[in-house]
Amino acid sequence: MKNNSSTSYQNVKINDRLFTAYQKLAIGTVIPYQEAVLRDEVAGAEKSHVFANFRIAAGEAEGEFYGFVFQDSDLYKWLEAVSYSLKINPDPALSKRADEAISLIGRAQQPDGYINTYFIINKQYERFANLREAHELYCAGHMIEAAAAYFEATGKRNLLEIARKKADLIYEIFVKQNKPGYPGHQEIELALMRLYYITKEAKYRNLAEHFINERGKQPHYFDDENARLDWVIWGKSNDDNRYNQSHLPVREQKEAAGHAVRAVYMYTAMAGIAGETGEKELYDACETLWMNITEKRMYLTGAIGSTAFSEAFTGDYDLPNDTIYGETCASIGLAFFAKKMLEIKPDSKYADVMERVLYNSIISGMSLSGTNFFYCNPLEAEPGVSGVTHSYFHAKPQRPEWYACACCPPNLARFLTSLGDYLFAENEKTIFSHLFIGSIMESRAKNIKITLETDYPNQGILTYRFSGNSEFDFAFRVPDWVKNMSLMLNRSQIDYESCLKNGYCYINKRWADGDILTVNFDLQARKIYASDKVRANSGKTAVMRGPLVYCAEEADNGKLQNLFIPRYAKIKVLDYDKDLLNGVVPLSVEAIRITSDGNLYSETPPAESGATLKLIPYYAWANREEG
Amino acid sequence: MKNNSSTSYQNVKINDRLFTAYQKLAIGTVIPYQEAVLRDEVAGAEKSHVFANFRIAAGEAEGEFYGFVFQDSDLYKWLEAVSYSLKINPDPALSKRADEAISLIGRAQQPDGYINTYFIINKQYERFANLREAHELYCAGHMIEAAAAYFEATGKRNLLEIARKKADLIYEIFVKQNKPGYPGHQEIELALMRLYYITKEAKYRNLAEHFINERGKQPHYFDDENARLDWVIWGKSNDDNRYNQSHLPVREQKEAAGHAVRAVYMYTAMAGIAGETGEKELYDACETLWMNITEKRMYLTGAIGSTAFSEAFTGDYDLPNDTIYGETCASIGLAFFAKKMLEIKPDSKYADVMERVLYNSIISGMSLSGTNFFYCNPLEAEPGVSGVTHSYFHAKPQRPEWYACACCPPNLARFLTSLGDYLFAENEKTIFSHLFIGSIMESRAKNIKITLETDYPNQGILTYRFSGNSEFDFAFRVPDWVKNMSLMLNRSQIDYESCLKNGYCYINKRWADGDILTVNFDLQARKIYASDKVRANSGKTAVMRGPLVYCAEEADNGKLQNLFIPRYAKIKVLDYDKDLLNGVVPLSVEAIRITSDGNLYSETPPAESGATLKLIPYYAWANREEG
Repeated sequence: MKNNSSTSYQNVKINDRLFTAYQKLAIGTVIPYQEAVLRDEVAGAEKSHVFANFRIAAGEAEGEFYGFVFQDSDLYKWLEAVSYSLKINPDPALSKRADEAISLIGRAQQPDGYINTYFIINKQYERFANLREAHELYCAGHMIEAAAAYFEATGKRNLLEIARKKADLIYEIFVKQNKPGYPGHQEIELALMRLYYITKEAKYRNLAEHFINERGKQPHYFDDENARLDWVIWGKSNDDNRYNQSHLPVREQKEAAGHAVRAVYMYTAMAGIAGETGEKELYDACETLWMNITEKRMYLTGAIGSTAFSEAFTGDYDLPNDTIYGETCASIGLAFFAKKMLEIKPDSKYADVMERVLYNSIISGMSLSGTNFFYCNPLEAEPGVSGVTHSYFHAKPQRPEWYACACCPPNLARFLTSLGDYLFAENEKTIFSHLFIGSIMESRAKNIKITLETDYPNQGILTYRFSGNSEFDFAFRVPDWVKNMSLMLNRSQIDYESCLKNGYCYINKRWADGDILTVNFDLQARKIYASDKVRANSGKTAVMRGPLVYCAEEADNGKLQNLFIPRYAKIKVLDYDKDLLNGVVPLSVEAIRITSDGNLYSETPPAESGATLKLIPYYAWANREEG
Repeated sequence: MKNNSSTSYQNVKINDRLFTAYQKLAIGTVIPYQEAVLRDEVAGAEKSHVFANFRIAAGEAEGEFYGFVFQDSDLYKWLEAVSYSLKINPDPALSKRADEAISLIGRAQQPDGYINTYFIINKQYERFANLREAHELYCAGHMIEAAAAYFEATGKRNLLEIARKKADLIYEIFVKQNKPGYPGHQEIELALMRLYYITKEAKYRNLAEHFINERGKQPHYFDDENARLDWVIWGKSNDDNRYNQSHLPVREQKEAAGHAVRAVYMYTAMAGIAGETGEKELYDACETLWMNITEKRMYLTGAIGSTAFSEAFTGDYDLPNDTIYGETCASIGLAFFAKKMLEIKPDSKYADVMERVLYNSIISGMSLSGTNFFYCNPLEAEPGVSGVTHSYFHAKPQRPEWYACACCPPNLARFLTSLGDYLFAENEKTIFSHLFIGSIMESRAKNIKITLETDYPNQGILTYRFSGNSEFDFAFRVPDWVKNMSLMLNRSQIDYESCLKNGYCYINKRWADGDILTVNFDLQARKIYASDKVRANSGKTAVMRGPLVYCAEEADNGKLQNLFIPRYAKIKVLDYDKDLLNGVVPLSVEAIRITSDGNLYSETPPAESGATLKLIPYYAWANREEG
């Protein structure tokens, strides 16, 4: 496995109609808002107290810990997003504030390297004793990720040294001193792999692997912990251990189970380790889990997590549209997992899913204004029910402003600002183009610069302009939905079919200044049918164009529950509307509207009349009135 | 209002293919099983401890109270069911055991009349202090109901005197001494009305009316209680007070809200009081609530309660089929309410609903074996999801054996054994036939005996045989679904249209020995469509024949989610099958089966093939394998 691996390419500048706007929102709106929340400067927002917790832990202020046990991670996630944003948009004032925050973290760090404000302030609780609930290793993971990102963005080692000291302490305790246990919420495993990529120190990779290997062993660590502990945060465990994927050793797990975010974070780490060690058994487990998710447990939008209860996977083909959880963070985690699988083996099936989640269940998590956020991304929402009655409470019909448990907005901020890392990858022979977002990449190794110009996914044309001089394979993904395409190298048509391998089109040549590769995908508005095993979608049709899932809103169509798409319906691609939802290509589709006679129950079939349903990209829903 | 009222006729013997069997199950299986549970004699069943609680309260045993705070009511409900059963089937041994249980209750009763084992045993808790949670008045209500039933069945006053003493104490405290408050769970109001009907003592009616009048007044009693109490059973109230219908004075309530069982018990009492006092404002509130339920908040089966959260009503037209609560007890309560409305005004709309719930959401609550029970009556159930995943946990796909919170099985037992009371009613001029269940009724006032012979609802023929000699209106209901019918008096055809009034067909004559009235309803298998306002049923068709809602099971049809009833489909009435589900008339309907290509998502529309869907009456579902 190891040998085929490519590394995702990290110095990409995005210059794209859609995503430059999202990055601007993240940098200009989300990150500053997040900082103000963390500093308790937003009137009306739930108190964060994160900076205050660190000051108390550093002995520079009096007071008690406030917030969730994982409150520290909010600061780390912010620092991570800040790092990426500084790469896109250097901002000395922001950089200075980040350095001050890092300095505060450093002052709160204990001499042995320990840092977690909940446990430093609440001295009565033993460190690393309540691994199932206390999120200590989770917070450490987010610190390590932030440290890696800050180092990569700025070259500064300030946070990296703090993080290494903490990672070293964890290594000392869990590996050297052999303390049993592993995190209740996975995160540190993938973070340690990042630390390993940067530092090349094997101990960090070994620590990640140690946690992965220990997980799910019998006798079960959490059962022991549960029996031993006399204090709890949320309560004794009454789960089976599927919730945090410790029900089986990870290599024996065949089905995606439990809390979806924990699951995909863990799979990401597993794939990262397998890619480094080349271990087949671990890789096979990743592939089995990948196939289980993408063939049986994933919504059309790429969303995962069918139930709000434990925010979890349920069973194969159980994909309710209205009681769905479909957390934005889980979609982001699925993109992490896809990226790692792609680094091991360049197969378009991974990047196709990465694209699916990006366009349909990640950016759907944020309003076009950048101020409102979905945790859950429902595929059916009914005014007066969704977000209101019990089974539908989590599945809001409008994006709320911010949540007390602030995971998704910061996760979106760090994902959008680091989106450049997902576009290209390279290995010795090849440069891969995974996602079609307007951008410039420069490979020093191959002495080449590639500019991708495109209005994808509004249009299907990709123009790659090369400068430099270097021989290599250029491989761009051909999405699984492409039926027709054309390919031009400079002025010559190329037969693309002979270049196809695992969903990528490989073109080998000595690339030089002025080379232009033009790809034209037929985006093909099309109807999609779910498997007959998916009860929730029986008899239903979805509509996609290119990578975009489309949806209908009442703002365009009136009461939706009375509109049906007949099987014979044709889809029409409407003109690009720059004023609609920041610019979208709407579709229209023939429909039937039913009108009943006004009785609750009647023998008179509802009357049918012809109608036209206007569709918009799903990611842009709920930016107008509810409905 | 008062002047038109009829009284339901209480000396009816049922002799019916379907309901004699249900009564036998109730008498021979449910009541004995229930008694064994109450006596803690069923191995494997959840401990009841009811008899033990009473013995401890009587000072005849040592120990602690065990069970729910409303555990006493289990014994009262059993005694009530026993009373009805003794009327149907005298059983001296059972009668003796009932008398012994009553004697035990009497010995546990305090000198002032107070009786509630939870409060007698747990002396630390103040009586009538936690009205919102503690179910004291609810238990008292069930005792009063049992007492009324036992007196009517046996003529014995033993339980009646205990109940009166308790009712007198409650009157003393809440009316004479003016203690503020009213029950958290309504029940005593309708029970006091029963006590009033029997004793003709106005104080009981006044007490019922007092509780009804106090409810929902400002300053709000439960808010005060909540603020004052330093002990709670389940927790401080964080509801708005809709949960127990105290959000508004009852006369101002326009929408059925909150916990559905509490709601319909209260509406029953309101209708009972309005029928007695003739108060128009109260009657209008009942009628408004009735219309809101039956025109906007009721399932096709008559089930009510759209959400498991608080087991409650939600909003108009919100009727999900899979996350439905639809508790059997709520359906029984809706029948109570219908009966009271019918006593005020003989309009078939009430009896039509009574019939709808009886055939489709009450008897569906019990297995054909009488040993398994549904609390919730879902209209869609999916193996592996229903009863398993969170939002669907309550909506079991198979009837479980018995529940710790044993409300529905005893409620079914008392309803089925008292079913005779729902069939006929009379006032000075008229005898009404509301439900078409084979039976014999004798009116002493009118010196007439009427025998109804029928195989309804398998067939639509009703044969009424008269003996005696008396002039009166005989009025039988013409169900709202009847399009064609014929009517014969002795050997002459009668034009029934001229006899129709408010859904009843009135025939005036001097009825005499040998008169035979034969009604033949065309049961007409028919497709039913829900209002286009009901999102859950958009594009769907239901099938009914006569009063029966039909359903499809996988036992007959294979995977149901892949079968569709096209609009043009014809329904065929199959032959009566005596071996199928204790004897049913199945239907078959043309259908389309879809088969997809095996991918989770595909552009290939699922293939369609012709199929036939076999349908059975909904009440008989889940008596074979799951599916």
